[in-house]
Order: sequence, then C-alpha cells, then structure tokens
Amino acid sequence: MTYDKTDELAINTIRTLAIDATFEANSGHPGAPMGMAPVAHVLFNKFLTFNPKNPDWVNRDRFVLSNGHGCMLHYALLHLFGYALSIDDLKHFRQVDSITPGHPEAHDTPGIEVTTGPLGQGFANAVGLAIAQQHTAAVFNKPGYELINNHTFTFFGDGCAMEGIASEAASTAGHLQLGNLIAIYDDNHISIDGDTKCAFTEDVLKRFEAYGWHTQHVQDGDSDLEGIEAAIAKAKEVKDKPSVIKLTTTIGFGSKLQGTGGVHGNPLKSDDIKQVKEKFGFDPEKTFVVPQEVYDQYHKHAADGAAAEQEWNKLFEKYGSEHKELHADLARRLTRDLPEGWQNKLPTYKPSDPAIASRKLSESVLEAIYDTVPELLSGSADLTGSNNTRWKKAIDFQPPSLGIGDWSGRYLRYGVREHAMAAIMNGLSAYGTIIPAGGTFLNFVSYAAGAVRLSSLSHQRVIYVATHDSIGLGEDGPTHQPIETLAHFRALPNMMVWRPADGNETSAAYYMALTSKQTPSILALTRQNLPQLEGSTIEKAIKGGYVALENKDAAVTLVSTGSEVSICLEAVKTLKEKNVAARVVSLPCVEVFDAQDKEYKLSVIPDGIPAMSVEVMSTLGWEKYSHEQFGLNRFGASGPYKKVYEKFEFTPEGIAKRALATVDFYKDVKPLRSPLNRAFQQLI
Amino acid sequence: MTYDKTDELAINTIRTLAIDATFEANSGHPGAPMGMAPVAHVLFNKFLTFNPKNPDWVNRDRFVLSNGHGCMLHYALLHLFGYALSIDDLKHFRQVDSITPGHPEAHDTPGIEVTTGPLGQGFANAVGLAIAQQHTAAVFNKPGYELINNHTFTFFGDGCAMEGIASEAASTAGHLQLGNLIAIYDDNHISIDGDTKCAFTEDVLKRFEAYGWHTQHVQDGDSDLEGIEAAIAKAKEVKDKPSVIKLTTTIGFGSKLQGTGGVHGNPLKSDDIKQVKEKFGFDPEKTFVVPQEVYDQYHKHAADGAAAEQEWNKLFEKYGSEHKELHADLARRLTRDLPEGWQNKLPTYKPSDPAIASRKLSESVLEAIYDTVPELLSGSADLTGSNNTRWKKAIDFQPPSLGIGDWSGRYLRYGVREHAMAAIMNGLSAYGTIIPAGGTFLNFVSYAAGAVRLSSLSHQRVIYVATHDSIGLGEDGPTHQPIETLAHFRALPNMMVWRPADGNETSAAYYMALTSKQTPSILALTRQNLPQLEGSTIEKAIKGGYVALENKDAAVTLVSTGSEVSICLEAVKTLKEKNVAARVVSLPCVEVFDAQDKEYKLSVIPDGIPAMSVEVMSTLGWEKYSHEQFGLNRFGASGPYKKVYEKFEFTPEGIAKRALATVDFYKDVKPLRSPLNRAFQQLI
Repeated sequence: MTYDKTDELAINTIRTLAIDATFEANSGHPGAPMGMAPVAHVLFNKFLTFNPKNPDWVNRDRFVLSNGHGCMLHYALLHLFGYALSIDDLKHFRQVDSITPGHPEAHDTPGIEVTTGPLGQGFANAVGLAIAQQHTAAVFNKPGYELINNHTFTFFGDGCAMEGIASEAASTAGHLQLGNLIAIYDDNHISIDGDTKCAFTEDVLKRFEAYGWHTQHVQDGDSDLEGIEAAIAKAKEVKDKPSVIKLTTTIGFGSKLQGTGGVHGNPLKSDDIKQVKEKFGFDPEKTFVVPQEVYDQYHKHAADGAAAEQEWNKLFEKYGSEHKELHADLARRLTRDLPEGWQNKLPTYKPSDPAIASRKLSESVLEAIYDTVPELLSGSADLTGSNNTRWKKAIDFQPPSLGIGDWSGRYLRYGVREHAMAAIMNGLSAYGTIIPAGGTFLNFVSYAAGAVRLSSLSHQRVIYVATHDSIGLGEDGPTHQPIETLAHFRALPNMMVWRPADGNETSAAYYMALTSKQTPSILALTRQNLPQLEGSTIEKAIKGGYVALENKDAAVTLVSTGSEVSICLEAVKTLKEKNVAARVVSLPCVEVFDAQDKEYKLSVIPDGIPAMSVEVMSTLGWEKYSHEQFGLNRFGASGPYKKVYEKFEFTPEGIAKRALATVDFYKDVKPLRSPLNRAFQQLI
Repeated sequence: MTYDKTDELAINTIRTLAIDATFEANSGHPGAPMGMAPVAHVLFNKFLTFNPKNPDWVNRDRFVLSNGHGCMLHYALLHLFGYALSIDDLKHFRQVDSITPGHPEAHDTPGIEVTTGPLGQGFANAVGLAIAQQHTAAVFNKPGYELINNHTFTFFGDGCAMEGIASEAASTAGHLQLGNLIAIYDDNHISIDGDTKCAFTEDVLKRFEAYGWHTQHVQDGDSDLEGIEAAIAKAKEVKDKPSVIKLTTTIGFGSKLQGTGGVHGNPLKSDDIKQVKEKFGFDPEKTFVVPQEVYDQYHKHAADGAAAEQEWNKLFEKYGSEHKELHADLARRLTRDLPEGWQNKLPTYKPSDPAIASRKLSESVLEAIYDTVPELLSGSADLTGSNNTRWKKAIDFQPPSLGIGDWSGRYLRYGVREHAMAAIMNGLSAYGTIIPAGGTFLNFVSYAAGAVRLSSLSHQRVIYVATHDSIGLGEDGPTHQPIETLAHFRALPNMMVWRPADGNETSAAYYMALTSKQTPSILALTRQNLPQLEGSTIEKAIKGGYVALENKDAAVTLVSTGSEVSICLEAVKTLKEKNVAARVVSLPCVEVFDAQDKEYKLSVIPDGIPAMSVEVMSTLGWEKYSHEQFGLNRFGASGPYKKVYEKFEFTPEGIAKRALATVDFYKDVKPLRSPLNRAFQQLI
C-alpha cells in the first residue's frame, strides 16, 4: 500500500477543519471539502510542487478550486502546508477583514491563485494559466534549462460543468491541445437544487472527448487513493491533450446527510459533527485539531517544494550567464514593471494628422510597442479584423501540429467565446509573465461581465479592446449598439473605462492600462474616423480628463468623451454664432480623473458656470460631472452612422440647442458649484 | 426528382436578393444567406406551417435565425411569402427607421419571432419556444383537439456553436428531451477570423450527442435538397430528443470568393455580382428581381398556411364548446391580459407584521397568485431554495419519463445556466402563452447580461427574481455581492429594476412586472429580513417612488431603496436628536418613477431642501435623484451582514452624519432646485 494511516488522518483532518470552520462561522459549504479531501490530499502531496514561503515562485504548479464555495478545503491545505494562513485565520472563516473570506480571493490570501466562486470562472482561469505556462516555456526554455514546466490543476463540480463559460474554455483548451492542464471533475451528483438528475443528465466525459480532451473515470473518489494517483499520473503522461478525470465522490463524506444537498451549503449540526469526529477517531469535544503527524507530513512536502525552488533559483542564475537577455526579460516581467523607456514608442499625433478610427489608433499602438513590450499577448473573440488587435508580424499562439502558429505566438484566437476569453485573460495575467489584451465589440464585453468583474476584484492587469463602441457603429443596429455598457463598467470598482477621442488619448489609454499593475481596463474604441484634436496630448489625457478647449469667458462647459468631443468642438462654433462662449472638456476616463487632486479637477470642471455632458449612450452617472446631460436613454438605430447621429441630434446644432437651454436654466442659481464639489467623501 | 427548376430559381432569387440588398446598403452579410438559401427553401416550403397574414397565430411553426447577421435570408423569405415586408423594405435594408434593420428585431418586423444577432441567443430562444410549445400543448391539448403541435426550427452557425449560452441551452434541451426542436447547424467552416481551424476544432455532433440530442449530417448542403428534406423529415420523427442536423455548406455560394471569409461580412463587389447573376441565369443589369413563378410558389405555400390557420380556428371554436374554461384561458392568454381581479390576490402587510426577507415576500406573492395566473412559469438557475421561486405545490416541467415532473409542470430547473435561462425566458415569453419568472442571485444576472439586454430590446415580459441583492447577503462575500449591478440595469432602456423595501412594495413590484406587457423586470430582493414600513401601500409603490415619511419642516430628504429604507427611517430619529428634521422617500423603481408626472415627482423630491440617496452599492446614477449620495463604490466584504453594514457605516449614525453634512453644504445655495428639475428633456 502506498497510503497509510497518516494519509487517512490527514484527509480526515481536512474534513474536520472544514466542519469546524463552517460551524464556527455558522455559514459555508462543508460538503465539497469533505468529499474532495482525498483527491486534494493525493494531488497536493504527490504531484504539486510549491513553496509555501514564496507563493509567487513562477514555476510552482498552479491549483485552482473552481468550485470556490468549497474554499475551506483550500484554506485547510494552505494552513497545513505552512502558508501564511494560521489556525486563527481558519477560526475567522467568513468574518469581516479576515483572509479567509466566503470564496477564495487571490488578492487577499497567500496561495490563492485566482478569485473563484462565481461558477465556471476558475475552470476558465485554469485554461489561462495553462496557456501562460505553455507560452512562457516556449519563450524562455532553452536546452538544459527547462525553467518553466509547471502544470495547472483545477477541481470543478457540476455547477461549473453546467456554466457556458466552462464549456467555452474547455473547447478552447481542447483546440489548443494543452497537455499541461489537468481538471478533476467532482462527480457528486448534487447541486443546490438536489440531485443533478433534475437538470443535468448529459454525458460530461463524452462532451470533453468531443472537445479533444483525454478522459478518465475514477469510480471511488472517497477511498481509492491509489486509483486517484494512477489517474493523475496517467493524465500527466498525456502531452498533447488536456485531461479530465471524472471522480465520483460522496459529498459531505462521513456526515449523516452525506450524498445529499443537505451538506452542500450549510454547516453540519452538532450531533452530526459529534458522530463524524468519532467515526474519524477525533475527539468530538475538540475543534480545529491538527495532529502533529499531519503537520509533519505536510511540512515535509512543503520543505521539498522550498528545496525545489532553491534548485530552480540556481538554475535560473546559471541561465543568466548563458542567456543574459532572456534572463533579464523574465526577471523584469516578474516585477510587473515594463521595459525602461517603452512609453517613448507610443504614437503621438498633431491636429493636422488625418482622421482615424480609434480602433485603428489602437492597432497603431500595438504595432508601435509589441516589440518593446514582449509580455503583451493580444487576441480577439473572432473579431480580429474588426477589433484591429493583431500586429502585422504577429504569430498565432497555436499547437505547432496545426501548422498555423506555435507556442511562442503572441496572438490568441479565442473564438466566439467572450466570457471564456475574459476569464482566460484573468488566468494569463495571474500567471505573472503576460499582459493580455483581448478584443470584442464593446456590446459583447457584456457577455463576459462575470469574468470582467473578477478582473477588477482580483486586480488583474488585463486590457479589453472594446471596439464598435456606440451607435457610431451604424448599420449593425441596436442589437450591437451599446447604451448601458459604459455605465455598467464605470460602476464597477477598480476598472478603468477609457473612451479616447483621438490618437493621443488612445496612446494615453494604453499608457495607463499597461502601467496600472493592479487595475484592468476597458478601451472603448470607435468604428468611425475621429479627427486629431487641437488640444490633446498624452500628458493631459493620462489625467483622465482635461480642458480640450479653454475660454475664460465661457458660459458653459461641454464635457464629453470619444467620438463626441470633436462634435462638441464644432458646437462651440455654433454657440459662438449665438454669442455664447463655451469651453470643452475631454474626459476619456472618469476613474482616473477621479483620482486627481481636487484643485486640478476644479480647474477642469469649475464652479460658476454650468456643465453639460455629451455622450451617445446612457446618461446614467454623468450627473456626477455635469449639471445637465445629453445622451441616449433608449436603444439606437440601424443605418449609416452619420444618419443615426442626426436622428438623435448628436450634431453641433443639437448640442448647441441643449447647451443654450442649460445656460438659461442655471443663470439664477447662486452659488453655482461645480458638480465635483461634494458634501462628503465617498468610502473607498 | 422532387425538386425542379422553380426550386432552383427560388433559391437563387433568395441569394440575389441578399446580394442586392447588401450591395445597396453597402453593408451586411451576404455569405450566410447565399449558403443557407437551399435549406431555407426546403424548410419553409416543405415543413413550416404559417400564415403571413397573421404572424401571431399561436400554433404556427417557429423559425429562429440564430446567426442573425444572415437576416437578409429571413427578410427575403418573409417578402416572398407575402408578409408585410415589401420589396422597398428590402431596398431599405440597414437604413434608419426601416423594418429591415441590420439584425432581426422581433418587435419591429412581422414574422421575426425573436431578436437575434448577438450570437447564441437565438439558439437558446428556440429552446424556450420549444419548451413553451411542449408546456402549452400539455395544458391545452385534449383528445381530438391537438391544438398546439407546432415545431421550432433554428439555424445556427459556428459562432453560435462556440458561445457558452448555446452550450447551456443545448444541454438543457437534451435533458428536457425536446422532440419538437430541430436545429440546423450551418457547417461552413468560416467565422470572422477565417477558417474555423484556427479556434474551433471540436466535434460538434459528438458534443450534441453527449447532451442527448439526435444527430445527423448532410454532406452537401449546397445542392442535395432531397437529402436536406430527408434529414428534416427524420428529425421530425424523433419524438423524445431534440435534433441537430449538421449541414455542410459553402458560404457565399456562387461568389468568386465562396467558401472564404471574404463573403461573410461584406457586400460582394460589382464584378462578382455580375458573374453570380449570370451563373444563376439572372439579368446582371437588374436588381431586386423576383420571378413571378417564385412568388407563385411561395404564395401558394402561404395560402396553405392561411388555410391551416382557418382549420385551426374552427377547431379552436369547437374546443370552446367542449372545454369552455380552457378555451377562455388560452384566448385570454393570447391577449396578454391577466385574469380579471388577479391583483386582489396580492399580499398586503401592516407595520405590525413581522420582518421578512424580500425573497420570502416574493415567494408569498407566488404562492398567492400562481393558481390565479396560470401562465406564470417559475424557475431558478439551481438556486431554488435560496431564490424562493417555487410554490409548494409546484410540479416540475420535466419529461415524464424521468419520473420527477411532467410537461404541464410550471417549475423549470434551469441548472447553473444563467445566460441560457434568460434567453430561454425570452423564448418562453415570445411564444405568447407564458410569463416566465426565473431566479438567480442578483450578482449572477450579470452572467446573463447578453440575454437580459434582449429582453429589453425585444419587449419581452420576463421577470428576473434576483435575490441576495447586496452586501446584505453577508458571508458569501465580495464575489457574490453586487456593487455595479443595479447601475448596469438601470442604464438599460426598457427595463424595470425593482428593489422593494417591504411586503407591500414587493407586491407592487409583481403587479407592475406582470401588467407591463412590453417590459421586462428585475426584482432585486434581500436575503436578510426587512421590517414592514409604516407608510407603504401597493398603490403608492406602483408609482415607483413615494414619500415613506413626510415632514413639512424637513431640512433634508433621504432617498433610498430596499433594505436601506428602514435604516433611513431609524436615521430620522437620530437626526431628530440633533434637531434636524428629515423626510424619507422610498424609490423602489426609478424607471417607473420617471414615468410619473412632474408635479407628483416634485412632491416626492421637492425643491428647497437637499436630497441624499442611500443605497449599499454604486452611487452611479443616484445624482439624478439626489444632491448627495451615500453608497458603496468599492467591493464589499465577507462576514455576518450586520457586521458588514457596520463596516461601511450603513447605520442610522452613518446616514445621519452624512445627512448633516449635506444640509450644511447646501444651506447657502439659492434657489436649491430638486434634481428632478432639468434644463431640457431627454430623447426617448
């Protein structure tokens, strides 16, 4: 027998820690930890290489708990292995300001790779982590220097398996032949509504086979440790396909309610806990018990991981002597700093330069910087020619056997899979050596909303290249024209939403997106051409907002973004004919503008005169930056874009008319404060 | 031969109409119509029963073009069959205010069942339409009266096949054994990025087999009309499984660029058009040509459909004599009116009634009305016990063979498939005999954003029961706590977002959701208990906003929603201790409030005193209803909900402190106008 009493004890320790923590919190999910403790024990001790003292070591094996509600499983493991997660942290499970929140959060807890819980996300993140490994290995590994060879493992349950995002990601992983990815499917037949028979009767393994995965089934996930080990070992041998192991387990193993929905999302009852602990040979009167031999076993494995990292560090140092530039590149990437002086490559524009669509301006940025910023990995959800996300010399990231790219390729064909794209990008970013940029139409970033939210929550530096940003896309019509989308993502904390008005602003958007290590960005870009503005520079635009046209006699400030800024500048001329002076503010990124000091902000949107916002979509939120709002609180229209703009009066005349009404309306208000003047500070 | 020259002529007429319309518009997608014209011709003429003069006939066969960018295919068919869509309408393809927009819109064009274009949506809508048929048949069909026996057909392409929403819907349809659903997969090997080899190499039919579908492959979709017909006929014979037919076609058939991405999304060039027309025997100098024999053939089929409807009408009349109540019920449902007096069943509450979570209050509404409103079909995305969406006596909608429900069941187990749920609900609503309600956590309505948007755009009466609506859900933590979600959906046109504060407001939300025939609703409901308010009634709440606590001496108005209204009422007491009088407004639905007359609105949020909003999520948009905003522009925290509320100061003291700052800040402003007073009207 490979496994002995200590292994059983360790498995039951994980189970009882999950039982105790959920009971103490009076909240949480004991069922999955109790059911998956055996596979977790085998996987972590026999296969995973990691150093708890340095959770950031780049070549560690990655583990993602996609069924994140079972996080007490992972928290227990992290504690047992000696990560900076104490027994007290387990006792504070699901308490305010603890590092053991209700679902795993990458940014807050050492050893948590990605933020999971929203179902399907972790699975797709794992695909991203595996792509990142494959790509990073292709770039940096050299004969005698297999620097990057980690595997990515993920656990997922029926909930994840039902989510479309996981289907998209699984299809992608199969296409990409990611042999470094091993997924373990917790086939416990239970979801929140009870037996999976009520909604989920498909043949999961057959589906994965259809995607091109290697599949196995371990019948007894509760006690067949050898079988589990053999299946994982076999999966590691398969080099040209991702692997899935269907593991049939008993949710809540040991509980009186084992195998039922009763153990999924509620702590066990006292009497049940008593009988479980007695069955497992634990003292029912004690809680949070970890036998010393379990610590010993786990710390031994942790020490092996620390030693492996030491070996790796030596290898990396030696690598530096032979491959100096690559060594420097990888070392730099791990700091998340960009190459020195990279920003000098950003294109700049003069007013005399031709009008260009901002999606094309974005392409020019990528063309200008891709060589200097090697960690940039672009891609698109099957809209490459429309999103302009691909530099001319780009090579696709593809399995070499397909003959259309290779593993070192820096362009990812995500397919029409927006949600998986976003989650894969989160995984790419989390790996630590890549900055992903991914394109789709702005309207279809909404398909990815679940993952975009986690980009923000988990502080991933990812860039959403969101073209066709408004009714300005024209003929495709209301099904494709965003109205609510910018309001949605402006309301999302820790997200920069950029809507540049010209070339300099587009460069500024990339500057901020690439240098903000903890914040994702959405770049909302036009299909239609935009003139280069008189007053724009990168330096001004990186403040998020600036005065594009000043006039000290102005009776009104026009505050605008993107394609409407140049129309506002035209409107100023119309207003002048009516003897009203106006000034124009370009506000390409409200989140960055918000972060400027108050004095600057008040110089942009000052007291004393009214401000009117102009943006061809929902006005929601513009009240924060203007007294009056001109926007579109209805769906758009299908037609040539200039006709659509005319229909909704987004013309110099339409703007001027409303600006005059604004001036008139506020003429009697004293004092007329800038909307930026507030009675109190918001919580941040 | 079953097919002759006229069939070929008809097929080429469809192709040339698509060529001419996209050329005329200088925009659009000729490739799919040219490739799918043969299957469309066979399907519409040999299988579909419909009456172009009455596109609303309930037992018509349903057709959904999920690859909606190919809409010229459908528009051409609608024209040829004699729907109210003229040749001029085809000439105005993709022009402002035409009924032939860039993607099919159900609300605007006769014969379009659902709004498609955003990929994967139509496929999932079709699943909803098929469920609706199955359910409606089970409720109304009686021996000798097979009133409801239509089929649902959908075309989908590689793009739809890649989208997770379609995967979710296909898995659902397989589970539900929807034998009335036939999907035709346009296997043309082309997506926007070129050959599907670059991103999509899975075995699609094997995947559908894994879902439990019947699968077939027709190799020559370009010319094997008999083979197409045989496959569809075979699919109709399969009664216990949905069917998919993989049809290998040549995109842009006939073009010089056929079989390439070049014909996907751009009009053909002039010289190409010339050669195509010559090849097809059409005069290259003429455009929008329809040979009379094609009209004749199609009008003949239309006449058969009209006759079929006549027969059906007779049958339905006869049914009325034998099954009076059912007849009346179906007739009424088709008007979309609710049963007379149904609203008297809505629960009402007194302040002395106990505090109850609004998710439970929602359950009480469902319990109270389900018997009276038989078209209500509830369900949940695997959160039944948390969403409280199931009345006690509910029967599941399930295939009888599973032994856990039947086709007449009114409770749908959607599985963990939020996006498909929403799109299925759109299909259920579009069928015309059902009002769907579907539950998930508010945070995961975002997973469904793509379909929710189309609920609004296509005017579907669907109800999203969105529980666990804030940080008030507590321990599950930031991954599950909405911050941006209400702002997102408030910015969506034609969507009612309700956040009721107590029992009467919850009843009001259902009243409006059920009686608004053209508008979907999201009901944001709490996990935690809420007291019954002193000042609430259904009558007040159905105005969207009302004064919950009046005080003519008030120095400040507190404007709030949901769980924060009662805390504001407590804050009034705290303020009184500081000698500041305050009034409280409950604003459960801003969209409905917006629709009230100005006088009423100004009586609720008046001039003269400042208003401060209080809601535990993003403040974005609250500037429209208040001078100052107290909210949460950051992610939440995992912990017991009262602790979380305290952490962020959503307490009477925290509110009072900010209200005092607000009073102080505005004391010198004259005139102090209500934020509802605006300089100009918004476009609607």
